[in-house]
Amino acid sequence: MASLQFKIKATDAFSKARAGTILTDHGSIETPIFMPVGTVGSVKAVTQQQLKEQVRAEIILGNTYHLYLRPGLPVLEAAGGLHRFNGWNKPILTDSGGFQVFSLAKSRKINEEGVIFRSHIDGSKHLFTPEKAIDIQRSIGADIMMAFDECPPGASAYEYAKSSMLLTHRWLDRCFNQFNNTPDKYGYTQNLFPIVQGGIHHDLRKASCEYISAKAAAGNAIGGLSVGEPIETMYEICNLCCDHLPVNKPRYLMGVGTPWNILECIGMGIDMFDCVMPTRNGRNAMLFTSRGIINIDNKKWEHDFSVLDDGIDCETSQYYSKAYVRHLFKSKEYLGLIIASIHNLAFYLWLVKQARLHIEQGDFVSWKSGMISRLQQRL
Amino acid sequence: MASLQFKIKATDAFSKARAGTILTDHGSIETPIFMPVGTVGSVKAVTQQQLKEQVRAEIILGNTYHLYLRPGLPVLEAAGGLHRFNGWNKPILTDSGGFQVFSLAKSRKINEEGVIFRSHIDGSKHLFTPEKAIDIQRSIGADIMMAFDECPPGASAYEYAKSSMLLTHRWLDRCFNQFNNTPDKYGYTQNLFPIVQGGIHHDLRKASCEYISAKAAAGNAIGGLSVGEPIETMYEICNLCCDHLPVNKPRYLMGVGTPWNILECIGMGIDMFDCVMPTRNGRNAMLFTSRGIINIDNKKWEHDFSVLDDGIDCETSQYYSKAYVRHLFKSKEYLGLIIASIHNLAFYLWLVKQARLHIEQGDFVSWKSGMISRLQQRL
Repeated sequence: MASLQFKIKATDAFSKARAGTILTDHGSIETPIFMPVGTVGSVKAVTQQQLKEQVRAEIILGNTYHLYLRPGLPVLEAAGGLHRFNGWNKPILTDSGGFQVFSLAKSRKINEEGVIFRSHIDGSKHLFTPEKAIDIQRSIGADIMMAFDECPPGASAYEYAKSSMLLTHRWLDRCFNQFNNTPDKYGYTQNLFPIVQGGIHHDLRKASCEYISAKAAAGNAIGGLSVGEPIETMYEICNLCCDHLPVNKPRYLMGVGTPWNILECIGMGIDMFDCVMPTRNGRNAMLFTSRGIINIDNKKWEHDFSVLDDGIDCETSQYYSKAYVRHLFKSKEYLGLIIASIHNLAFYLWLVKQARLHIEQGDFVSWKSGMISRLQQRL
Repeated sequence: MASLQFKIKATDAFSKARAGTILTDHGSIETPIFMPVGTVGSVKAVTQQQLKEQVRAEIILGNTYHLYLRPGLPVLEAAGGLHRFNGWNKPILTDSGGFQVFSLAKSRKINEEGVIFRSHIDGSKHLFTPEKAIDIQRSIGADIMMAFDECPPGASAYEYAKSSMLLTHRWLDRCFNQFNNTPDKYGYTQNLFPIVQGGIHHDLRKASCEYISAKAAAGNAIGGLSVGEPIETMYEICNLCCDHLPVNKPRYLMGVGTPWNILECIGMGIDMFDCVMPTRNGRNAMLFTSRGIINIDNKKWEHDFSVLDDGIDCETSQYYSKAYVRHLFKSKEYLGLIIASIHNLAFYLWLVKQARLHIEQGDFVSWKSGMISRLQQRL
């Protein structure tokens, strides 16, 4: 079936930002977009109804490594894929499992064939290959699947980064081969995005972009950033990659980042983002708001009965007071982290929607610089 | 201002069950009713919106002991009471703090004046007296406040139960004295319910009912049950108390119980219930459903893609599959306990609503006996 379509609706005259729409068989996605992370098929502490009505998520992520281990493919296939299993009927993107294998699994061994690793849950032994990563993602039923890549540490030396990139490129060929030789599993179109690697080395990144671009995929991703390198380096590499990836395809910056990281990278031409920061930091009492950062645990909010954030269009954010949510965190109540997770995700979705509106309005750059200094304030 | 009103709409011809309406300044409550427990001002793992729309709760509980310690009265008073603090604008009932002081606080000492205890949070020393229990509940802003009582262990010997009951009665006089000499704190009517004590001793319970009834309160509660005594004893005492408490006032059985306990006690003339069981057991993977009990952790649900419970009118219960919720519990995802808490509470509210309908229809007793054997089945 036809790949997903990407239509650019507006491009900013003063930056490389663009506003567009991605059309998938599970509905459309307005870009730039932030994608909440639903590691094991659940965005932590948020119901599917809240994701739609409060957060206004348009697409969520699932993690291949986690879903493969638990509930496992027999359950997911019997359910008819992850959408049916978890009741999320909008688009789903899955990572390839590569990143988690390198960060979570035990005693992993990489060779040309793939990666042998042991489950962090029960120690059982598994092999992921590019072909298997595609098969698993087909079974999960992702609308957007990611190529299986090696993700080296942020500051890897040139030679290591180069050989890792070349391995990723060889794996990419095998991914596309498997992708092109297997049917969509559940009747709707599944797409495959390749991933640029190359560490912090400009010529490697450029070469990787060219290799990836030649695949003429439905969209392209930038991996291996926000993994320990300085933030200026991240911006530099992201910017360079955007210049060497196709203009007419969505660009996905994996695992990034803070609200201001996202705004800066939108300005470079990134269309899609994911990050665990809004939910993870939310569970640790850190709230991102339209006026700046709140540590809701802090005593200063004890008597502040104003709502969490009256600047964003989320019922939860406009319903509960800072004093109440602080009380919930001090009392270690589940409701505290539920509210914080919903709010932070809704804030991220609000932010990318605002970015989109300002791209369309033509004042994205000036809006962005004011917004970035506002958002970084500690309240 | 005028006390809450209780209007009996239907009485069952074959049992002592009745269906009624309690009118408060925060809205009406259809009885028999189950009241979710919101210990520190939050029903664990459930948002206020879900409580209204999914659970269909009509009144919730707050715990005086917990709220007094945290967030504390200065915060609650500055907020304008618990309703404004937690955003729950329907009725709230608070316990008197007595039960928690006896079960949670450290190094408590009881004397005629009241109870001196140390906070389980920071070890700080506090004194609760009948007068103070009323003052605190006024500040919390409960629509229904409870008298300060001593709650002796379930199997207390006669002499201990008797002297404890007599102390509770003397405290009750002081509670009503304080209640009658203090104004409603926030403009709406606050009511005080006395509590029957007397352990498992019939003559003490009867004497306590008579003492309590003489207060002509807006409603009456039965305390000191479901605290370790055999279930048949609980039923026996509950039944006896119902026979000796006013017919035209709501009767509240504190801290009870399982779904079948609730149905049996409705048949004896109880109108109001509260219990942590639906939320606590839910967090431990035990689901009460309209077809019986499910341990959702169990492997037998791994491939069961039917919804949690299609027999009750709750969107959450009819949305997520058993296999998905099992997966969430196995993966220790917050969403598992969120769904289980919402479902179990919605089930309890559904159950008392069904009881009400069958009381009105006149077939409560036959419906109850079929339902009780169904609900106790382990699926």
